[in-house]
Amino acid sequence: MSSSSPPSRLQNLLGHLRPHKPAAAGPTAPPHHISHLSPTYFLERAAAIEPRAEAVYHVTANGRVLRRSYMELADRARGLAYYLRKKGLRRVGVLAPNTPAFLECVYGIVAAGGIIVPVNYRLKEEDVGYILDFAEVDAVVVDQEYEGLLAGWREKGGKGIEVIVDLDTDATEGALSGPFDEAVLEGLNYDIATGSKGWAGLVSQTVANEDDTIAIPFTSGTTSKPKGVVYTHRGAYLATLANLVESGLNLPDRRCKYLWTLPMFHAVGWTFPWAICAVRGTHVCLRKIDYPLIWKLLKEEGITHFNAAPTVNTMLCSAAEAEVLPLPVRVTVAASPPTAHLFEQMTNLNLLPVHVYGLTETYGPITRGYVLPEWDALPKHDKYANMARQGHGFLTSLPVRIIKPDLPEGVVVDVARDGKEIGEIVFVGNICCKGYYKDPEATRKLFAGGVLHSGDLAVWHPDGSIQIQDRAKDIIISGGENISSVALESMLVEHPDVLEAGVVAVADSHWGERPKAYLTVKVVGGGPSGSGGCVLRARDVIDWARHNSAISKFMVPREVELVRELPKTSTGKIKKNVLREWAKKGTPPGVAVVERQ
Amino acid sequence: MSSSSPPSRLQNLLGHLRPHKPAAAGPTAPPHHISHLSPTYFLERAAAIEPRAEAVYHVTANGRVLRRSYMELADRARGLAYYLRKKGLRRVGVLAPNTPAFLECVYGIVAAGGIIVPVNYRLKEEDVGYILDFAEVDAVVVDQEYEGLLAGWREKGGKGIEVIVDLDTDATEGALSGPFDEAVLEGLNYDIATGSKGWAGLVSQTVANEDDTIAIPFTSGTTSKPKGVVYTHRGAYLATLANLVESGLNLPDRRCKYLWTLPMFHAVGWTFPWAICAVRGTHVCLRKIDYPLIWKLLKEEGITHFNAAPTVNTMLCSAAEAEVLPLPVRVTVAASPPTAHLFEQMTNLNLLPVHVYGLTETYGPITRGYVLPEWDALPKHDKYANMARQGHGFLTSLPVRIIKPDLPEGVVVDVARDGKEIGEIVFVGNICCKGYYKDPEATRKLFAGGVLHSGDLAVWHPDGSIQIQDRAKDIIISGGENISSVALESMLVEHPDVLEAGVVAVADSHWGERPKAYLTVKVVGGGPSGSGGCVLRARDVIDWARHNSAISKFMVPREVELVRELPKTSTGKIKKNVLREWAKKGTPPGVAVVERQ
Repeated sequence: MSSSSPPSRLQNLLGHLRPHKPAAAGPTAPPHHISHLSPTYFLERAAAIEPRAEAVYHVTANGRVLRRSYMELADRARGLAYYLRKKGLRRVGVLAPNTPAFLECVYGIVAAGGIIVPVNYRLKEEDVGYILDFAEVDAVVVDQEYEGLLAGWREKGGKGIEVIVDLDTDATEGALSGPFDEAVLEGLNYDIATGSKGWAGLVSQTVANEDDTIAIPFTSGTTSKPKGVVYTHRGAYLATLANLVESGLNLPDRRCKYLWTLPMFHAVGWTFPWAICAVRGTHVCLRKIDYPLIWKLLKEEGITHFNAAPTVNTMLCSAAEAEVLPLPVRVTVAASPPTAHLFEQMTNLNLLPVHVYGLTETYGPITRGYVLPEWDALPKHDKYANMARQGHGFLTSLPVRIIKPDLPEGVVVDVARDGKEIGEIVFVGNICCKGYYKDPEATRKLFAGGVLHSGDLAVWHPDGSIQIQDRAKDIIISGGENISSVALESMLVEHPDVLEAGVVAVADSHWGERPKAYLTVKVVGGGPSGSGGCVLRARDVIDWARHNSAISKFMVPREVELVRELPKTSTGKIKKNVLREWAKKGTPPGVAVVERQ
Repeated sequence: MSSSSPPSRLQNLLGHLRPHKPAAAGPTAPPHHISHLSPTYFLERAAAIEPRAEAVYHVTANGRVLRRSYMELADRARGLAYYLRKKGLRRVGVLAPNTPAFLECVYGIVAAGGIIVPVNYRLKEEDVGYILDFAEVDAVVVDQEYEGLLAGWREKGGKGIEVIVDLDTDATEGALSGPFDEAVLEGLNYDIATGSKGWAGLVSQTVANEDDTIAIPFTSGTTSKPKGVVYTHRGAYLATLANLVESGLNLPDRRCKYLWTLPMFHAVGWTFPWAICAVRGTHVCLRKIDYPLIWKLLKEEGITHFNAAPTVNTMLCSAAEAEVLPLPVRVTVAASPPTAHLFEQMTNLNLLPVHVYGLTETYGPITRGYVLPEWDALPKHDKYANMARQGHGFLTSLPVRIIKPDLPEGVVVDVARDGKEIGEIVFVGNICCKGYYKDPEATRKLFAGGVLHSGDLAVWHPDGSIQIQDRAKDIIISGGENISSVALESMLVEHPDVLEAGVVAVADSHWGERPKAYLTVKVVGGGPSGSGGCVLRARDVIDWARHNSAISKFMVPREVELVRELPKTSTGKIKKNVLREWAKKGTPPGVAVVERQ
């Protein structure tokens, strides 16, 4: 890595922040005391208040450190917006890792009056094409690394559609760093040529209708085609404010420095592209999960917050670079139910977990586990077990509910708040998406009975907090009893040598179904697990589970298999469908760990 | 003070938090992904998440310490709501100091579907009656101390209207502490008798229309009849979120303990009754400003935040009990332009100022002075001078503007951003009130040209921050030059012996107007100022101002008068109209300080 990049041609055009010139009130303008909510304004506002504050820290694709101020970030987003406006482009796909260009897209596309369509770069080429076609994009911004994923689409559905490539370099040679930067520059020039309206000529401070679409992120679609989730300006705004407050991004004594471990394409980065700018924090971008680099940034760059799935946190805690941090870092954890064990490990490293839960359909997080002071008096295990619960609805949401899962569609009845009866988690309120894009039938099902169905199973505790048991399709029904795969996984990772666990149902002639566990083991003495034989044997784990855990005997898996790696989605969820395949057909060659006899 | 009160009969009825039963969607229900915003829900939510957290700390009228949990506060508010519903009362005046009953009114009245009409208890009996009549209240909750203010009204406009008296005692004798508590109990019983619907039977989680009225606080009306300012559920909700974020009430490591120095009747306590519950903080109530008690609470009760006018902070800093606090306390300061000198004094005591500015018409604060890290490199005086600027629009507001003041009504043109041209501060966005109650003409003027007119004069600095110069009517026009009374006051309090300064225009045959200053001096050696002759003489101050300050010579007041006390409004603003009276007719007997010759 080298130091910051020298000024580029772009910077000659920076600093043109315009005074506020609101558009004349049209015939449909709201009353004077109402302006329609949109989070895009948070960037314009940050640049107006603290133009010199560091907005972006990034190690570019060519390995150089890039630092940009809020004035620069805002000017670049504005340039992109005017470029899109000049070209009449209004619905723009974004296929990129967590780069500054992605952030500029989040603001620039919407400021141009358009809609963001973020695309998961870990999808197959075919699914990427499907999403771009289905969302009817009229342009795509793509990071050079993933340009290949568009090859097939460009020959078919994408024919003639503009593709803007970002090289994610730092333009050290005095040249611009590629088509994306050229577009930004062209946009800034276009604004100057057409009256220098600046932000006032764009969609920023308010929007025609806060219920209009701001983005269409897609579900990961593990079992069917990805579905487009319709986000509105109002929903994104209120989710942003909730995330800001719940993750505590407005620190009283330090500027927020947010590390982008969570993919930005995932639910528009849980609205954090907006929330970080709302507090004038620094976006520390990250092209990929790289544990030594993350630890380096944690130690040297004064990171204050990051969001990551339990699996990323598990790897972080077991990395060789792990060290107790001098100042607390708030880690917002979601995506799959974390274990009490993980929360204890993280806390010991001063990585203080904020536990949230949500779906792409709820703009990312919508519940939080609130840590109560009285828990300090509990035994450690109980305290961390409480912390691993999914908690209560967010500040700007309404209460979460658990409803009986087997009633006719549209009938909504709460389960008992006894910590035992399993039901489906449902949501109401402003952090619910508007529906699925071009899929009225799926939208109707999503909101059956007037509540947003999560498909996740949970119990409701007497204190009103909820605790996930399973995805509806992941619950194991054995001899008529429900076995929670999540509860089994939480138990298994308490074994001192187990790193991660994934449990699925396998068919059983007697019981109907029974659980099977796939485990990865901790690295011993620095060598890779399984090299030269593993120290742990599957039957040791089964024996340990029978004798050492608090779960019922009938739940203990009779089949345990040690593997080198668990299959995961881009957001770190274990792919249960792949494990079910393994259970049927056996693990692929090289996956299973050879056990010592 | 004694310790906490023993359980009362009320507590037998506590703990009836109901599970969420949303009302069936009616014909006008919004789409599933939208719920109408209302801040009343923040109390129900706090009690659901942390029922045992301390919601209220209060020293009662009978001198006992009262501590109440969120479950208790929520149950009491619910009881009040059901009482009002039972009696069909929907618009309720509240005439009380900062008591727990006032907080219960803020939630209970709205939960019953009603409107809060807070009344300033420092008004004359006649004005109190005017407000209650004008707002058409159908009930009044009054603290026993102020019951006398209703005497005349009860014989006339208030005849037959229910008055509920709160004794603000702790019910130590096993009896309830008076009519207000009886009403709460009656309401809780009424709920039980009619199906125990709890919060689900009230207006809490959402509201029929977020643009409906939630409260009608009144302006102080120094020059005309008080005007009723219409607050909506949506406006209050968004102002609450902004205050939460801007004052940093969601501390990462401590529970917010908010000291109620700001009157709750003033702009509904700047929305802090809602903001504190949103973070499950403790409301430390306070019947009156009592500097030794405030310092005791700061030192012993771990106060984290309070809001107060500069005058209160000035007195706090010069109190005998003043001490550097071990942990920082965030003090949100507004109401009249504070001086750089005050901010320095406060900072030295670990009372860290958050500088905001607003009007009753903007739900209280709507701008904040953001402290930039680069100011640390400035000379101290410049740093604190920057901190005393009014800053930029709040997170959930839109940018504040300064417009040319002398254009025809409805014509809106920005002044130059040069720190020199004086114009009027105007606001746009969601933190603007809906208008004046039953006064379309005043509402039209308030929003002339589509912006909310503050009546305050300010300059716009090149960095976009604004700085108040004066109320429009307080500016002094001397020989055609504008002299800012605020700038003169800021300069005068830098004199080491001056405590406070109030400057007004007096007629001058040659210059048209010229400034006259009224000053209070610091207490020397613990004795009251002026006792036995003051150490400071008016002409010393004039000499000092001529030689030591940075202002133009023509601005230096030729007339300075030392007084024992300055006349102030309930919110700590200096009453300029009274000073103008003094300037015309001379100070009343006993006000002027006898100077040593």
